[in-house]
Amino acid sequence: MEKINLRDYVATVKDYPEPGVEFRDISPLMGNGAAYKDAINQIVDFAKDLNVELIAGPESRGFIVGSPLAYALGVGFVPARKVGKLPREAVSASYTLEYGGVNELEIHKDAIKPGQRVLIVDDLLATGGTINATRRIIEELGGVVAGVAFIIELEALHGREKAMEAGEVPFLALMEY
Amino acid sequence: MEKINLRDYVATVKDYPEPGVEFRDISPLMGNGAAYKDAINQIVDFAKDLNVELIAGPESRGFIVGSPLAYALGVGFVPARKVGKLPREAVSASYTLEYGGVNELEIHKDAIKPGQRVLIVDDLLATGGTINATRRIIEELGGVVAGVAFIIELEALHGREKAMEAGEVPFLALMEY
Repeated sequence: MEKINLRDYVATVKDYPEPGVEFRDISPLMGNGAAYKDAINQIVDFAKDLNVELIAGPESRGFIVGSPLAYALGVGFVPARKVGKLPREAVSASYTLEYGGVNELEIHKDAIKPGQRVLIVDDLLATGGTINATRRIIEELGGVVAGVAFIIELEALHGREKAMEAGEVPFLALMEY
Repeated sequence: MEKINLRDYVATVKDYPEPGVEFRDISPLMGNGAAYKDAINQIVDFAKDLNVELIAGPESRGFIVGSPLAYALGVGFVPARKVGKLPREAVSASYTLEYGGVNELEIHKDAIKPGQRVLIVDDLLATGGTINATRRIIEELGGVVAGVAFIIELEALHGREKAMEAGEVPFLALMEY
Protein backbone atom coordinates (compact mmCIF):
# COMPACT_ATOMS: atom_id res chain seq x y z
CA MET A 1 0.00 0.00 0.00
CA GLU A 2 1.25 3.44 -0.88
CA LYS A 3 2.19 5.58 2.09
CA ILE A 4 -0.35 8.31 2.75
CA ASN A 5 0.92 11.87 3.05
CA LEU A 6 -1.60 13.51 5.37
CA ARG A 7 -0.51 16.97 4.19
CA ASP A 8 -2.15 16.22 0.85
CA TYR A 9 -5.49 16.20 2.72
CA VAL A 10 -5.19 19.58 4.44
CA ALA A 11 -6.88 22.50 2.66
CA THR A 12 -5.30 25.87 3.38
CA VAL A 13 -7.85 28.70 3.30
CA LYS A 14 -6.32 32.16 3.00
CA ASP A 15 -7.72 35.06 5.07
CA TYR A 16 -10.06 32.87 7.14
CA PRO A 17 -11.54 33.56 9.60
CA GLU A 18 -9.63 36.87 9.50
CA PRO A 19 -7.47 38.72 6.98
CA GLY A 20 -3.88 37.51 7.16
CA VAL A 21 -4.75 34.14 8.72
CA GLU A 22 -4.15 30.88 6.86
CA PHE A 23 -6.77 28.44 8.10
CA ARG A 24 -5.80 24.76 8.05
CA ASP A 25 -8.91 22.79 7.20
CA ILE A 26 -8.80 19.04 7.72
CA SER A 27 -12.22 18.33 6.15
CA PRO A 28 -10.53 16.62 3.14
CA LEU A 29 -8.62 14.36 5.56
CA MET A 30 -11.77 13.38 7.44
CA GLY A 31 -13.62 12.93 4.17
CA ASN A 32 -11.12 10.40 2.81
CA GLY A 33 -11.47 6.92 4.31
CA ALA A 34 -7.81 5.95 3.95
CA ALA A 35 -6.38 9.25 5.21
CA TYR A 36 -8.81 9.39 8.13
CA LYS A 37 -8.02 5.82 9.17
CA ASP A 38 -4.29 6.46 8.88
CA ALA A 39 -4.48 9.57 11.08
CA ILE A 40 -6.59 7.87 13.75
CA ASN A 41 -4.37 4.78 13.74
CA GLN A 42 -1.29 6.93 14.34
CA ILE A 43 -2.97 8.31 17.47
CA VAL A 44 -4.00 4.76 18.48
CA ASP A 45 -0.30 3.79 18.37
CA PHE A 46 0.60 6.79 20.53
CA ALA A 47 -2.18 5.93 23.02
CA LYS A 48 -1.31 2.26 23.38
CA ASP A 49 1.35 2.76 26.06
CA LEU A 50 -0.56 5.39 28.02
CA ASN A 51 -3.16 3.14 29.74
CA VAL A 52 -5.93 5.35 28.44
CA GLU A 53 -9.37 4.72 29.98
CA LEU A 54 -11.28 7.57 28.34
CA ILE A 55 -10.91 9.96 25.41
CA ALA A 56 -12.02 13.58 25.81
CA GLY A 57 -12.42 16.02 22.93
CA PRO A 58 -13.67 19.62 22.78
CA GLU A 59 -16.71 20.59 20.68
CA SER A 60 -16.95 20.02 17.88
CA ARG A 61 -14.06 18.97 15.61
CA GLY A 62 -12.51 17.29 18.65
CA PHE A 63 -15.44 14.87 18.45
CA ILE A 64 -14.43 13.81 14.92
CA VAL A 65 -10.91 12.98 16.10
CA GLY A 66 -11.75 11.64 19.56
CA SER A 67 -14.71 9.37 18.97
CA PRO A 68 -13.15 7.04 16.37
CA LEU A 69 -10.09 6.88 18.62
CA ALA A 70 -12.30 5.84 21.57
CA TYR A 71 -13.98 3.23 19.36
CA ALA A 72 -10.63 1.86 18.17
CA LEU A 73 -9.26 1.63 21.72
CA GLY A 74 -12.52 0.23 23.14
CA VAL A 75 -12.88 3.04 25.67
CA GLY A 76 -15.55 5.69 26.24
CA PHE A 77 -15.70 9.16 24.71
CA VAL A 78 -16.36 12.27 26.80
CA PRO A 79 -17.31 15.45 24.95
CA ALA A 80 -16.22 18.81 26.36
CA ARG A 81 -19.21 20.85 25.19
CA LYS A 82 -19.91 24.54 24.73
CA VAL A 83 -21.69 25.80 27.81
CA GLY A 84 -25.45 25.16 28.03
CA LYS A 85 -25.53 22.03 25.86
CA LEU A 86 -25.32 19.34 28.55
CA PRO A 87 -28.58 18.24 30.21
CA ARG A 88 -27.14 17.14 33.56
CA GLU A 89 -24.83 18.54 36.26
CA ALA A 90 -21.56 19.70 34.75
CA VAL A 91 -18.25 21.35 35.60
CA SER A 92 -17.04 24.20 33.41
CA ALA A 93 -13.91 26.20 32.61
CA SER A 94 -13.48 29.30 30.51
CA TYR A 95 -10.82 30.13 27.95
CA THR A 96 -9.80 32.98 25.66
CA LEU A 97 -10.56 32.50 21.98
CA GLU A 98 -7.84 32.67 19.35
CA TYR A 99 -9.62 35.54 17.55
CA GLY A 100 -10.86 37.42 20.64
CA GLY A 101 -13.58 36.84 23.21
CA VAL A 102 -14.08 34.27 25.95
CA ASN A 103 -15.79 30.91 25.73
CA GLU A 104 -16.66 28.18 28.19
CA LEU A 105 -16.53 24.40 27.96
CA GLU A 106 -18.18 21.89 30.25
CA ILE A 107 -18.14 18.18 31.02
CA HIS A 108 -20.80 16.13 32.82
CA LYS A 109 -19.82 15.64 36.45
CA ASP A 110 -20.37 11.87 36.29
CA ALA A 111 -18.39 11.46 33.06
CA ILE A 112 -15.00 11.01 34.74
CA LYS A 113 -14.26 9.00 37.87
CA PRO A 114 -11.38 10.00 40.17
CA GLY A 115 -8.15 8.40 38.99
CA GLN A 116 -9.36 7.65 35.45
CA ARG A 117 -6.73 8.22 32.79
CA VAL A 118 -7.96 10.53 30.05
CA LEU A 119 -6.36 11.33 26.70
CA ILE A 120 -7.39 14.74 25.32
CA VAL A 121 -7.54 15.12 21.55
CA ASP A 122 -8.47 17.81 19.07
CA ASP A 123 -8.02 18.46 15.37
CA LEU A 124 -5.72 21.44 15.76
CA LEU A 125 -3.56 22.96 18.50
CA ALA A 126 -3.55 26.74 18.13
CA THR A 127 -3.13 28.88 21.28
CA GLY A 128 -3.94 25.93 23.53
CA GLY A 129 -6.80 27.64 25.37
CA THR A 130 -9.37 24.95 24.60
CA ILE A 131 -7.04 22.15 25.70
CA ASN A 132 -6.02 24.03 28.84
CA ALA A 133 -9.72 24.46 29.78
CA THR A 134 -10.54 20.81 29.01
CA ARG A 135 -7.60 19.73 31.13
CA ARG A 136 -8.67 21.91 34.08
CA ILE A 137 -12.15 20.35 34.06
CA ILE A 138 -10.78 16.80 33.87
CA GLU A 139 -8.40 17.46 36.74
CA GLU A 140 -11.11 19.14 38.83
CA LEU A 141 -13.17 15.94 38.41
CA GLY A 142 -10.20 13.92 39.71
CA GLY A 143 -9.18 12.54 36.31
CA VAL A 144 -5.57 12.12 35.25
CA VAL A 145 -4.54 13.58 31.89
CA ALA A 146 -2.63 10.73 30.22
CA GLY A 147 -1.59 12.80 27.21
CA VAL A 148 -2.70 15.20 24.50
CA ALA A 149 -2.85 14.55 20.75
CA PHE A 150 -3.64 16.61 17.67
CA ILE A 151 -3.80 16.20 13.93
CA ILE A 152 -2.12 19.61 13.45
CA GLU A 153 0.02 21.86 15.63
CA LEU A 154 0.43 25.53 14.68
CA GLU A 155 3.88 25.95 16.13
CA ALA A 156 4.07 29.76 15.95
CA LEU A 157 1.21 30.08 18.44
CA HIS A 158 3.05 28.18 21.21
CA GLY A 159 -0.07 26.27 22.26
CA ARG A 160 2.04 23.41 23.52
CA GLU A 161 3.25 25.55 26.43
CA LYS A 162 -0.34 26.38 27.38
CA ALA A 163 -1.32 22.70 27.09
CA MET A 164 1.49 21.76 29.49
CA GLU A 165 0.86 24.59 31.98
CA ALA A 166 -0.48 22.13 34.58
CA GLY A 167 2.47 19.76 34.07
CA GLU A 168 4.18 17.86 31.27
CA VAL A 169 2.26 14.98 29.69
CA PRO A 170 2.98 12.92 26.55
CA PHE A 171 2.31 14.97 23.40
CA LEU A 172 1.58 14.07 19.79
CA ALA A 173 0.92 16.19 16.71
CA LEU A 174 0.71 14.39 13.36
CA MET A 175 1.65 17.52 11.39
CA GLU A 176 3.28 20.86 12.17
CA TYR A 177 2.60 24.11 10.34
CA MET B 1 -19.49 -12.00 27.10
CA GLU B 2 -22.65 -10.74 28.72
CA LYS B 3 -25.07 -9.10 26.34
CA ILE B 4 -25.14 -5.32 26.68
CA ASN B 5 -28.51 -3.67 27.19
CA LEU B 6 -28.05 -0.23 25.63
CA ARG B 7 -31.06 1.10 27.54
CA ASP B 8 -29.00 0.84 30.73
CA TYR B 9 -26.77 3.56 29.27
CA VAL B 10 -29.44 6.14 28.45
CA ALA B 11 -30.03 8.81 31.11
CA THR B 12 -33.54 10.25 31.12
CA VAL B 13 -33.60 13.89 32.19
CA LYS B 14 -37.03 15.16 33.22
CA ASP B 15 -38.20 18.63 32.14
CA TYR B 16 -35.23 19.27 29.83
CA PRO B 17 -34.88 21.40 27.79
CA GLU B 18 -38.52 22.37 28.56
CA PRO B 19 -41.09 21.49 31.23
CA GLY B 20 -42.89 18.26 30.37
CA VAL B 21 -40.12 16.95 28.08
CA GLU B 22 -38.15 13.81 28.96
CA PHE B 23 -34.71 14.23 27.41
CA ARG B 24 -32.91 11.01 26.39
CA ASP B 25 -29.23 11.57 27.05
CA ILE B 26 -26.80 9.04 25.57
CA SER B 27 -23.69 10.49 27.23
CA PRO B 28 -23.44 7.39 29.49
CA LEU B 29 -23.54 5.15 26.41
CA MET B 30 -20.78 7.11 24.68
CA GLY B 31 -18.77 7.22 27.90
CA ASN B 32 -18.74 3.43 28.28
CA GLY B 33 -16.28 1.68 25.98
CA ALA B 34 -18.25 -1.58 25.69
CA ALA B 35 -21.66 0.03 25.18
CA TYR B 36 -20.28 2.55 22.67
CA LYS B 37 -18.54 -0.19 20.68
CA ASP B 38 -21.67 -2.36 20.73
CA ALA B 39 -23.86 0.48 19.43
CA ILE B 40 -21.46 1.45 16.63
CA ASN B 41 -20.97 -2.19 15.63
CA GLN B 42 -24.73 -2.65 15.28
CA ILE B 43 -24.76 0.25 12.81
CA VAL B 44 -21.71 -1.22 11.02
CA ASP B 45 -23.73 -4.43 10.50
CA PHE B 46 -26.63 -2.42 9.09
CA ALA B 47 -24.31 -0.48 6.78
CA LYS B 48 -22.48 -3.49 5.39
CA ASP B 49 -25.03 -4.28 2.68
CA LEU B 50 -25.62 -0.66 1.67
CA ASN B 51 -22.39 -0.01 -0.28
CA VAL B 52 -21.73 3.07 1.81
CA GLU B 53 -18.98 5.37 0.52
CA LEU B 54 -19.36 8.20 3.03
CA ILE B 55 -20.94 8.83 6.43
CA ALA B 56 -22.62 12.18 7.11
CA GLY B 57 -23.69 13.38 10.56
CA PRO B 58 -25.21 16.66 11.74
CA GLU B 59 -23.44 18.85 14.31
CA SER B 60 -22.60 17.88 16.90
CA ARG B 61 -23.77 14.63 18.49
CA GLY B 62 -24.07 13.19 15.00
CA PHE B 63 -20.26 13.48 14.86
CA ILE B 64 -19.91 11.15 17.86
CA VAL B 65 -22.03 8.49 16.15
CA GLY B 66 -20.87 9.03 12.58
CA SER B 67 -17.11 9.35 12.88
CA PRO B 68 -16.40 6.00 14.60
CA LEU B 69 -18.73 4.40 12.07
CA ALA B 70 -16.73 5.95 9.20
CA TYR B 71 -13.52 4.74 10.81
CA ALA B 72 -14.88 1.20 11.26
CA LEU B 73 -16.11 1.05 7.65
CA GLY B 74 -12.94 2.63 6.25
CA VAL B 75 -14.84 5.48 4.60
CA GLY B 76 -14.75 9.26 5.02
CA PHE B 77 -16.84 11.36 7.40
CA VAL B 78 -18.68 14.48 6.26
CA PRO B 79 -19.98 16.83 8.96
CA ALA B 80 -23.20 18.76 8.38
CA ARG B 81 -22.30 21.88 10.32
CA LYS B 82 -24.25 24.76 11.80
CA VAL B 83 -24.11 27.64 9.36
CA GLY B 84 -20.96 29.82 9.36
CA LYS B 85 -18.55 27.17 10.64
CA LEU B 86 -17.18 25.86 7.35
CA PRO B 87 -14.24 27.75 5.81
CA ARG B 88 -14.89 26.90 2.15
CA GLU B 89 -17.79 26.98 -0.30
CA ALA B 90 -20.80 25.16 1.10
CA VAL B 91 -24.41 24.26 0.36
CA SER B 92 -26.99 24.85 3.08
CA ALA B 93 -30.54 23.88 4.02
CA SER B 94 -32.74 25.18 6.81
CA TYR B 95 -34.99 23.28 9.21
CA THR B 96 -37.42 23.97 12.01
CA LEU B 97 -36.15 23.22 15.51
CA GLU B 98 -37.97 20.79 17.81
CA TYR B 99 -38.46 23.50 20.43
CA GLY B 100 -39.14 26.42 18.09
CA GLY B 101 -37.06 28.54 15.74
CA VAL B 102 -35.21 27.82 12.53
CA ASN B 103 -31.67 26.60 12.04
CA GLU B 104 -29.43 25.98 9.07
CA LEU B 105 -26.94 23.22 8.30
CA GLU B 106 -24.26 23.20 5.64
CA ILE B 107 -21.86 20.84 3.93
CA HIS B 108 -18.74 21.70 1.94
CA LYS B 109 -19.48 21.64 -1.76
CA ASP B 110 -16.50 19.38 -2.53
CA ALA B 111 -17.33 16.91 0.26
CA ILE B 112 -19.65 14.74 -1.82
CA LYS B 113 -19.17 13.68 -5.43
CA PRO B 114 -22.15 12.99 -7.68
CA GLY B 115 -23.31 9.40 -7.29
CA GLN B 116 -21.55 8.78 -3.96
CA ARG B 117 -23.59 6.70 -1.53
CA VAL B 118 -23.94 8.42 1.83
CA LEU B 119 -25.30 7.01 5.09
CA ILE B 120 -26.74 9.70 7.38
CA VAL B 121 -26.49 9.08 11.12
CA ASP B 122 -27.39 10.92 14.31
CA ASP B 123 -27.78 10.11 17.97
CA LEU B 124 -31.52 10.69 18.11
CA LEU B 125 -34.40 11.00 15.65
CA ALA B 126 -36.94 13.47 16.98
CA THR B 127 -39.03 15.47 14.48
CA GLY B 128 -36.65 14.59 11.64
CA GLY B 129 -35.95 18.17 10.61
CA THR B 130 -32.18 17.85 10.92
CA ILE B 131 -32.08 14.65 8.90
CA ASN B 132 -34.39 16.04 6.26
CA ALA B 133 -32.11 19.10 5.86
CA THR B 134 -28.96 16.96 5.74
CA ARG B 135 -30.59 14.78 3.11
CA ARG B 136 -31.61 17.76 0.97
CA ILE B 137 -28.02 19.04 0.93
CA ILE B 138 -26.57 15.62 0.05
CA GLU B 139 -29.05 15.20 -2.78
CA GLU B 140 -28.43 18.74 -4.05
CA LEU B 141 -24.74 17.83 -4.28
CA GLY B 142 -25.63 14.76 -6.33
CA GLY B 143 -25.08 12.23 -3.54
CA VAL B 144 -27.32 9.22 -3.00
CA VAL B 145 -28.69 8.65 0.49
CA ALA B 146 -27.99 4.97 1.15
CA GLY B 147 -29.84 4.92 4.48
CA VAL B 148 -30.36 6.64 7.81
CA ALA B 149 -29.42 5.31 11.26
CA PHE B 150 -29.94 6.48 14.83
CA ILE B 151 -29.16 5.32 18.32
CA ILE B 152 -32.63 6.40 19.49
CA GLU B 153 -35.95 7.06 17.75
CA LEU B 154 -38.65 9.06 19.57
CA GLU B 155 -41.60 7.37 17.94
CA ALA B 156 -44.29 9.80 19.08
CA LEU B 157 -42.69 12.60 17.06
CA HIS B 158 -43.03 10.76 13.72
CA GLY B 159 -39.58 11.86 12.55
CA ARG B 160 -39.31 8.78 10.39
CA GLU B 161 -41.94 10.19 8.00
CA LYS B 162 -39.97 13.45 7.69
CA ALA B 163 -36.75 11.50 7.11
CA MET B 164 -38.42 9.56 4.28
CA GLU B 165 -40.13 12.59 2.69
CA ALA B 166 -37.77 12.48 -0.33
CA GLY B 167 -38.24 8.71 -0.76
CA GLU B 168 -37.90 5.52 1.30
CA VAL B 169 -34.39 4.44 2.24
CA PRO B 170 -33.18 1.73 4.67
CA PHE B 171 -33.76 2.77 8.28
CA LEU B 172 -32.23 1.72 11.60
CA ALA B 173 -32.86 2.83 15.17
CA LEU B 174 -31.14 0.88 17.92
CA MET B 175 -33.76 1.86 20.53
CA GLU B 176 -37.28 3.26 20.47
CA TYR B 177 -38.81 5.50 23.13
